[in-house]
Amino acid sequence: MEFVFHNPTRVFFGSGKIGVLGTELQKRGAKKVLLIAGGGSIRNNGVYDQVVESLKEAGINWIEAWGVQANPTLEKVREIIALAHREQVDSVLAVGGGSVIDSGKAVAAGFYMEDIWKAVTDEERIKAALPVYTVLTLSATGSEMNSFAVITNSETTHKAGLGSPLLYPVFTIIDPSVQASLPFRQTVSGALDATAHILEYYFTEENAIATNAINTALLKTIMEMTDRLQENAADMVARSNLAWCATLALNGISGVGHQGGDWACHTIEHAFSALKPQIAHGEGLGVIFPAWIEYMNQKMPGRFLGWAKDVWDEDNVCRALHKFREKISAWGAPTSLRDLGLQAEDLPVLLEMITASGTLGGFSKLESADIEALLMLAY
Amino acid sequence: MEFVFHNPTRVFFGSGKIGVLGTELQKRGAKKVLLIAGGGSIRNNGVYDQVVESLKEAGINWIEAWGVQANPTLEKVREIIALAHREQVDSVLAVGGGSVIDSGKAVAAGFYMEDIWKAVTDEERIKAALPVYTVLTLSATGSEMNSFAVITNSETTHKAGLGSPLLYPVFTIIDPSVQASLPFRQTVSGALDATAHILEYYFTEENAIATNAINTALLKTIMEMTDRLQENAADMVARSNLAWCATLALNGISGVGHQGGDWACHTIEHAFSALKPQIAHGEGLGVIFPAWIEYMNQKMPGRFLGWAKDVWDEDNVCRALHKFREKISAWGAPTSLRDLGLQAEDLPVLLEMITASGTLGGFSKLESADIEALLMLAY
Repeated sequence: MEFVFHNPTRVFFGSGKIGVLGTELQKRGAKKVLLIAGGGSIRNNGVYDQVVESLKEAGINWIEAWGVQANPTLEKVREIIALAHREQVDSVLAVGGGSVIDSGKAVAAGFYMEDIWKAVTDEERIKAALPVYTVLTLSATGSEMNSFAVITNSETTHKAGLGSPLLYPVFTIIDPSVQASLPFRQTVSGALDATAHILEYYFTEENAIATNAINTALLKTIMEMTDRLQENAADMVARSNLAWCATLALNGISGVGHQGGDWACHTIEHAFSALKPQIAHGEGLGVIFPAWIEYMNQKMPGRFLGWAKDVWDEDNVCRALHKFREKISAWGAPTSLRDLGLQAEDLPVLLEMITASGTLGGFSKLESADIEALLMLAY
Repeated sequence: MEFVFHNPTRVFFGSGKIGVLGTELQKRGAKKVLLIAGGGSIRNNGVYDQVVESLKEAGINWIEAWGVQANPTLEKVREIIALAHREQVDSVLAVGGGSVIDSGKAVAAGFYMEDIWKAVTDEERIKAALPVYTVLTLSATGSEMNSFAVITNSETTHKAGLGSPLLYPVFTIIDPSVQASLPFRQTVSGALDATAHILEYYFTEENAIATNAINTALLKTIMEMTDRLQENAADMVARSNLAWCATLALNGISGVGHQGGDWACHTIEHAFSALKPQIAHGEGLGVIFPAWIEYMNQKMPGRFLGWAKDVWDEDNVCRALHKFREKISAWGAPTSLRDLGLQAEDLPVLLEMITASGTLGGFSKLESADIEALLMLAY
């Protein structure tokens, strides 16, 4: 077991915690902040008002960039970078879910680059970034406590990631009470995204025993809390615990000893939502992951038994998979590519998009034929 | 659920990782390092040679302060602070177990104070500290990834803690292979210490569901790995996973949502080892914790059922406790105050030492009569 663990993000967690925003920014010398937001939901759940009040109280200036969408685009990021230059901001404040935070990180790094897309294509390393602060409104991607971002180049329908230690949010405010008004569908999409993050690591290294025990705990807690929220969206204990699990699912803890994990399913899902931006990332993952386990279980029998036993209390991977799909279905989420709105004629397009970058998966090593079979299985 | 989480320590984990020491210190501008060590075990397990080689290669100067003992003393800390002043070092490098690291932290803070003891007695806040770096040689206290230290004033036999965000080690190197040569007794003492850290949080807040699921995972993994090491001390998978669990047991993760935890058992154990410094902290905790659960279970029936069920697969706290004590005993560790070498006539002295600071336990709220009963139970 060999790894480096480091995560400097400070998390302020709890109801009413948005109130610390202004003074905490002030302590860190922020004077003119670029507030990045989505389509406007923060105007309805009270978050925007709380943010503005806290900034005003602390005497922090800010400008606003609205309109980041799910599966955020390179075009929007470039537009916001131009605004950041014009207004000479000194920090980025992302107020929203993973898409807003990812855009915030891309803007923070892009502020100091000629072309932020070069960080995605690995042509250029990120050497500087504006400090990033976040107020999280949807627990799902874990972006609030990690150093990664995913953006889509909509010209080329290429959706891909960038990352740098400079992009860890300096601090993140998670007030789970602001998520009480979310439609259950979004809660589920977030829960599936967090589940997928853990599963990307779960199978890579059997000797990462401590990590996998923690990951089992996280997977089971995510399921129990989502079940509780299906019963009662106002269950704040469930909401809080789900939120914290989603953060831990991709803040480094779940990957310790797993050599970077697999990530084939994420790459595949990125093609789904790059092709059809209306597909929620978490829902796409909820379709592809069970199919991936089913497919990989044929190639590596035995490898998935621990997951079947520890998470599903089953001695048989097929029965565990059945329970997994039943759970996703009980939450009202799609369980096939068809359910996601993809058609048979989309499959070759998807295959080409997915295989463009070569073999997939740190652990699963999927070639083109594997991906084709996997897509059929998921269809 | 409300908390602030922040832990900036960087962990380099794995066999051979001591080799990064010199270059990592160099990156951070260290020029003259104060190497603090214990009685000399690092000369036997190869750690000292690896440290010195890495420092030399990177051209880092250092001076050495040896002789820190288990339950480290204020006197020794003061002696090392004087040396640090004379030699004008710029950083502290603690190479050893929890006692050495705790002494290193006290020296780092004491370097800038007239009297470091004032930080323990809360008369003075820590406002500055030398940067602390650690090379861990015994997984137990978690000090390698937290901001606390415990030292003993041997004049007054007062053992107590100090802490400051300035005392998080900048980085910590954990090479579990150097622990392969430890006597099993020390491995067990470390495992019991880590177990106790988790238990200090376990019962405080039933709504911290995610944290308790993680804590259950950690408790069970610690037990399984210790069992494996009893079979085979050279089992590096077990050694690595135990080491990582011990770090996670007190790096903040295990306490999320638990309002600071209880810590009555730690205060009680500190009296044991302040009175008889030959008592290993972990062994003292292995005696007092089962007694505390037994005592508290009478006062709060029901509260301990989750632990019995999740950790021990028992519907009954008494049976779980029986298994807990059997496990400790099977590892060859003491299970009573008598086993620890304490006598009946020590009990009133202990009681006085323990009650000197008033009511004990953030959650258990033990008065003098409770502590007396608890000591009798443990005796």
